[in-house]
Amino acid sequence: IDAGDGPALNGLLDPLHGADVADLIEQLTPQRRGRLLRLYSGEIDAEILSEIDESIREEVIEALPREVVAEAVREMDTDDVVDLVEDLDAPEREEILSALDAEDRVAVEQSLTWPEYSAGRLMQSEVVTAPEHWTVGETIDFLRREEWLPDQFYHVVLIDPRRRPIGYVTLGRLLSSPRATPLRDLTEDSFRSIRATAEEADVAYLFNQYHLISAPVVDEADRLVGVITIDDAMSVLDEEHEEDILLLAGVGDESSISDTVVETARQRVPWLGANVLTALLAAGVIAFFEDSIASLVALAVLMPIVASLGGNAATQTLTVVVRGLATKSLTPSNVWRIVRRETIVGLMNGAMFGAVMAVVAYVWFRDAELSGVIAAAMIINLTVAAVGGILVPLALDRMGQDPALASPTFVTMLTDVIGFMAFLGLATWILL
Amino acid sequence: IDAGDGPALNGLLDPLHGADVADLIEQLTPQRRGRLLRLYSGEIDAEILSEIDESIREEVIEALPREVVAEAVREMDTDDVVDLVEDLDAPEREEILSALDAEDRVAVEQSLTWPEYSAGRLMQSEVVTAPEHWTVGETIDFLRREEWLPDQFYHVVLIDPRRRPIGYVTLGRLLSSPRATPLRDLTEDSFRSIRATAEEADVAYLFNQYHLISAPVVDEADRLVGVITIDDAMSVLDEEHEEDILLLAGVGDESSISDTVVETARQRVPWLGANVLTALLAAGVIAFFEDSIASLVALAVLMPIVASLGGNAATQTLTVVVRGLATKSLTPSNVWRIVRRETIVGLMNGAMFGAVMAVVAYVWFRDAELSGVIAAAMIINLTVAAVGGILVPLALDRMGQDPALASPTFVTMLTDVIGFMAFLGLATWILL
Repeated sequence: IDAGDGPALNGLLDPLHGADVADLIEQLTPQRRGRLLRLYSGEIDAEILSEIDESIREEVIEALPREVVAEAVREMDTDDVVDLVEDLDAPEREEILSALDAEDRVAVEQSLTWPEYSAGRLMQSEVVTAPEHWTVGETIDFLRREEWLPDQFYHVVLIDPRRRPIGYVTLGRLLSSPRATPLRDLTEDSFRSIRATAEEADVAYLFNQYHLISAPVVDEADRLVGVITIDDAMSVLDEEHEEDILLLAGVGDESSISDTVVETARQRVPWLGANVLTALLAAGVIAFFEDSIASLVALAVLMPIVASLGGNAATQTLTVVVRGLATKSLTPSNVWRIVRRETIVGLMNGAMFGAVMAVVAYVWFRDAELSGVIAAAMIINLTVAAVGGILVPLALDRMGQDPALASPTFVTMLTDVIGFMAFLGLATWILL
Repeated sequence: IDAGDGPALNGLLDPLHGADVADLIEQLTPQRRGRLLRLYSGEIDAEILSEIDESIREEVIEALPREVVAEAVREMDTDDVVDLVEDLDAPEREEILSALDAEDRVAVEQSLTWPEYSAGRLMQSEVVTAPEHWTVGETIDFLRREEWLPDQFYHVVLIDPRRRPIGYVTLGRLLSSPRATPLRDLTEDSFRSIRATAEEADVAYLFNQYHLISAPVVDEADRLVGVITIDDAMSVLDEEHEEDILLLAGVGDESSISDTVVETARQRVPWLGANVLTALLAAGVIAFFEDSIASLVALAVLMPIVASLGGNAATQTLTVVVRGLATKSLTPSNVWRIVRRETIVGLMNGAMFGAVMAVVAYVWFRDAELSGVIAAAMIINLTVAAVGGILVPLALDRMGQDPALASPTFVTMLTDVIGFMAFLGLATWILL
């Protein structure tokens, strides 16, 4: 399509939603992307630009003519502008901000003063407010008069004279109530405001937990500074999940399908490097028992089974714990129950698969003592896997680290080392 | 707290949101949960009941007096009732449905005729509609007159005389427009309706992709049958993610923090069992080279490193591919680019860590040939890991299977077997 040129492209892309066009741009190779942007630049609007993935956003903005970007930015809500400029360098950021009118520019700059990944960065400054003493009729007349209303809004926020939000009214209640009703009588129980400094992950949790649609954001003095809507919270929830999955798999948390070979390799090398170190540690344990292996090669055949099952069992526990922490369903009040549960499950599974492996080993090598050793090693390693799988992420979490980040490496090291040590150590002690 | 009895509990739980009370109930041990439900039963309302996690819902409903459940169910929107009863057995379901008034009951039963995990199960039947020829004023008067309006609604859906949705108007537009404006002039571009038979995962994707707030649901004849709101879509997105994470980690997709020891063990055993089989296969490969290991024990020391790095590299690729499929960012048009990228990255990382391991092996064992063998084996295994990590989930996806389900087991088997085979095979051929 973009190999040939022309307005055929316009015809094809025009009926698509901005999010789909953005996806299409992401999927192209960098060269074809550049060509498409040159051909299509006149049609790139606010909708498309705010949907472009972070990983290629800088590239796209640079490829576009300045007027196109400026025009698009003027159409956006302030939260989308913040999202767009926060990763840009100072001169480029300045250029985009200068396209905004004074009021929006102040709002964007204020939003940028809040820490990254905070509610302050997520909010939009366009909020529909009403003084607490207004009636339904006054509010509707006000809404009909105003021109600047945001594209989407779901609540009218009641504020006191010091601009502190004290409640909100859904538009549904507003529409279905007689004009004379005071707004104060229509406020929702679910009302809760969010501090601008709150972490965005916690914001997403609040929306999901309490089924919020929008929530006012306040500064340290409890004054209203903006509003967060559920679609932004949904995006955050999506990103947080993605990050957890990628971290647990040992892929950088910014990995994207549009990354090039070099970016992909660079993200993955640190994790594989850490893996080499832990694998060498495990190899050191094996080397310590070289003589035992030389005199009984069956040990070399069976030892990876003990380590592998331990690693898998640890990953299971670990994942449940990391998710429990992320969803706040694992709390100080039930942590001991979970530690106990996982330990018992580890012991049970160890006993069960230990028995299975004892039978297999006996059939294979006709050596009852070897069978006993592998059974004992399995019980030890699966119990260690369970305990490590829960304590390591808990410890990381308590130290203020992301438990998804380093847990897998730590815990696999633990089960490899303990697995080889228990199996080869017991074998050396009992069999030789 | 619930060890002693009394109304103190009421005082403590009363100010909490239903979702928090539900979380609290989930975190208790089964015995304490029963006691709490007996003490607190009078206060269990629709809000709490619809928030209770699936895994303990049946238990909770059984523990509560029938009148309490009936009262709570009558307060719920129909989508929450559907969610509540769909996993119950026929007699219990019947009992709950009989508490509903005739109209709601019909709506719930109709919803239950749609397949599980479809849009039809997710929707609520309370929709605010208006004929296409109405004006803003007529609509507002209608809304003020009606009593049955849903708790939350964000759009008025325009329908034609055959009840087919033809557009929708946000309440914000409705409120800010003069009374004489025809609704038809205010409809949103983002309008799209969803088939009742659509899968809920696709519904969540649509909401996230197009920033929808609510979307009408239609039957095969395009007639309006209900509406799905973003909070339900957000829950589905959350569950889908959770399922992916848990499946990738080899934990049953229904795992929950409130599971007992037996439930937990039962979920994990099949995965560990599959792992035993694949580990035995790898052990078989090692056994095939027993003589080589007996004459050069260094092989036993180094072989787990080759397998372990391959497994990690495979998990990285696999996760990126599974996520790419889930988010629909991996499509037929870019799949070959990704296959090429991952293969090149696999080769590069193989060469790099192969070189590292060659140096380490040389320093350790002073054997240049052994160094060459481990380098070659690493290149082979990391390339196989990359290719397997992408082709296995793609193949499963094409066969209509969930790629997160079986991929990890398959791919780890592949890297274990190929890792041991390449390393021990090359060593036997070159060194011995």
